[in-house]
Amino acid sequence: MTDKKNIMEYETVALDDNETSVVIIDQTLLPGRTQLIHLKTAEEIWDAIYLLKVRGAPAIGVAAAFGIYILAKGIDTQDYAAFYKELVKQKEYLNSSRPTAVNLSWALNRMEEVCRTNEKLPVALIKEKLREEAIAIKEEDIWVCKKIGEYGLDLVKPGDGILTHCNAGQLATSKYGTATAPIYLGQERGYNFHVFADETRPLLQGARLTAYELQSSGVDVTLICDNMSAAVMRNGWINAVFVGCDRVAANGDVANKIGTSVVAAVAKRYNIPFYVCAPTSTIDRNTKTGDDIHIEQRPAEEVTEMWYKERLTPEGVKVFNPAFDVTDHELITAIVTEYGIARAPFAQSLQEIFEKSREMKNKNK
Amino acid sequence: MTDKKNIMEYETVALDDNETSVVIIDQTLLPGRTQLIHLKTAEEIWDAIYLLKVRGAPAIGVAAAFGIYILAKGIDTQDYAAFYKELVKQKEYLNSSRPTAVNLSWALNRMEEVCRTNEKLPVALIKEKLREEAIAIKEEDIWVCKKIGEYGLDLVKPGDGILTHCNAGQLATSKYGTATAPIYLGQERGYNFHVFADETRPLLQGARLTAYELQSSGVDVTLICDNMSAAVMRNGWINAVFVGCDRVAANGDVANKIGTSVVAAVAKRYNIPFYVCAPTSTIDRNTKTGDDIHIEQRPAEEVTEMWYKERLTPEGVKVFNPAFDVTDHELITAIVTEYGIARAPFAQSLQEIFEKSREMKNKNK
Repeated sequence: MTDKKNIMEYETVALDDNETSVVIIDQTLLPGRTQLIHLKTAEEIWDAIYLLKVRGAPAIGVAAAFGIYILAKGIDTQDYAAFYKELVKQKEYLNSSRPTAVNLSWALNRMEEVCRTNEKLPVALIKEKLREEAIAIKEEDIWVCKKIGEYGLDLVKPGDGILTHCNAGQLATSKYGTATAPIYLGQERGYNFHVFADETRPLLQGARLTAYELQSSGVDVTLICDNMSAAVMRNGWINAVFVGCDRVAANGDVANKIGTSVVAAVAKRYNIPFYVCAPTSTIDRNTKTGDDIHIEQRPAEEVTEMWYKERLTPEGVKVFNPAFDVTDHELITAIVTEYGIARAPFAQSLQEIFEKSREMKNKNK
Repeated sequence: MTDKKNIMEYETVALDDNETSVVIIDQTLLPGRTQLIHLKTAEEIWDAIYLLKVRGAPAIGVAAAFGIYILAKGIDTQDYAAFYKELVKQKEYLNSSRPTAVNLSWALNRMEEVCRTNEKLPVALIKEKLREEAIAIKEEDIWVCKKIGEYGLDLVKPGDGILTHCNAGQLATSKYGTATAPIYLGQERGYNFHVFADETRPLLQGARLTAYELQSSGVDVTLICDNMSAAVMRNGWINAVFVGCDRVAANGDVANKIGTSVVAAVAKRYNIPFYVCAPTSTIDRNTKTGDDIHIEQRPAEEVTEMWYKERLTPEGVKVFNPAFDVTDHELITAIVTEYGIARAPFAQSLQEIFEKSREMKNKNK
């Protein structure tokens, strides 16, 4: 299914009308083709996450939550114990698709928790509770991104130059994006930002997705290669860097797409503020520092072959291809969450954000 | 003409046996095909330099010197004034092919100087002097690279991890390379370096050329994307960075392939020494600081299309594509030349290197 609509009119992750599949845009085909695909089996969902057909920490969380709901619906038993056992099996399988993003396990844990807290209910009603929780995760994601956008917008001014890396955009979330949320909100309010998008090798999420969605939305965007960040900063074109993140450690170290810590080091050199946009769901208080984050290694072919007309590298050359890197908290000016802005010392400010989030959630219960 | 020989057995730039053309390996086809091409006209030489069929500051200098010799041979006059006028016209044309590398104008100026200092000689003999000068430029290049290798080797130890950016290898010079000279010399002496080669977007000189020539020579080389430098440094795998350069300003600021200053900022962050390998011919005392260096801008299509199966970027997206960037001297640990190692304060140490080089050249006259 191909369509000519503006990419922004699609939902990144949705349920189909019959609620028998998770519907995503196959992001590996963008921007050339906009193709929606329907994921019905655990294997299809796992593959879609592993192959980056759906990507971005928040979007992966929503896809996994919808996925567990769809899979739960298919568990054919009225017995709670049997139902729960199968659900956990599916959950652990989906959780193995990408190890670095904490949202994946965070969303899956929320779904399991719903199951456990409702164990006295009939299985059919538990399934309904799972449906509600998955939809809530998506709706919260939209709210979270918008709040991050509002807090982030306070950090910049009209006409600013903004650099972003990878895609922490609408395509990485349910709406607005994280790193792009201040940009979209600013766009609505006539801020006229000048955005520079790193292409983000090896999988070119910046070139294929960020440049595309920002251009679609009328934002002034310029594509650069990853190694041009210092050139644009030295030219005085950048006032702030906004990036997303996959996991924040308790001390403020951040795992995000490979190359993020390169941008951070360069921004530090040119005294440009470096902001990480992080839903509190990406803050992992069980991870003490960046050294404790498991970094996913991906196949060499992503570097040597994937996008090329012909193999451009010598046969048999060794390749190192980590999907993420760790940005030390010393390089981070602030972490922007839906509950406010955390600054150094991060161990303390993140703790405060966390308590605020718990307080708000308790209020809403 | 395609051949199966090891790439290292070819000469990067040579005269053909009849001395009617400049013979180069078309580097845009590497590593897939090894094709020698013969450049006879000024347009062919200009195109080969502009299109990066021959590239690397020292190699461009040698190609231009051979080129001027070939073109001078074809100037059909016995009248010095007419000969000189035509030679200068050709020189200026070739000099316009790439603005940033100072070696190009340096080599062309040497050729013009030979012409002027021999103006009393018959034109046929001036042509012979031009031939000798072009060959001398190439032979000096080999000597210079070897000396840089020896000085550079003193800065590292066996088993070290070395990161390099772009190709300042044998393919960028007549032999040994500049940044790779310590690596090749170390290889001959059993140093067992572990080299990491940045792929170097957009034209992938690191992936296509550096990884290839180092692998050909039996060096342990690992290919990474440009945005992975921080990851390998944070892992503790890098002991030193070696890069080449296209122009050194009087204060030690360096213009080199885009991305060089990114690596420098990251190396600074991780306290890893950052060494620039620079023949004295790349030191331009007429350029006060990096701000005075004209940075060549290249076509957007190099970023959006060149190596891809299909266009991966949205139609009409703006692109910034500078071929070089400026690395501030504060980020440079040392500049390694054929006459020794310059350290901060560079204005003074480069002046000393320059005086040493003049002294040595006067001795050899």
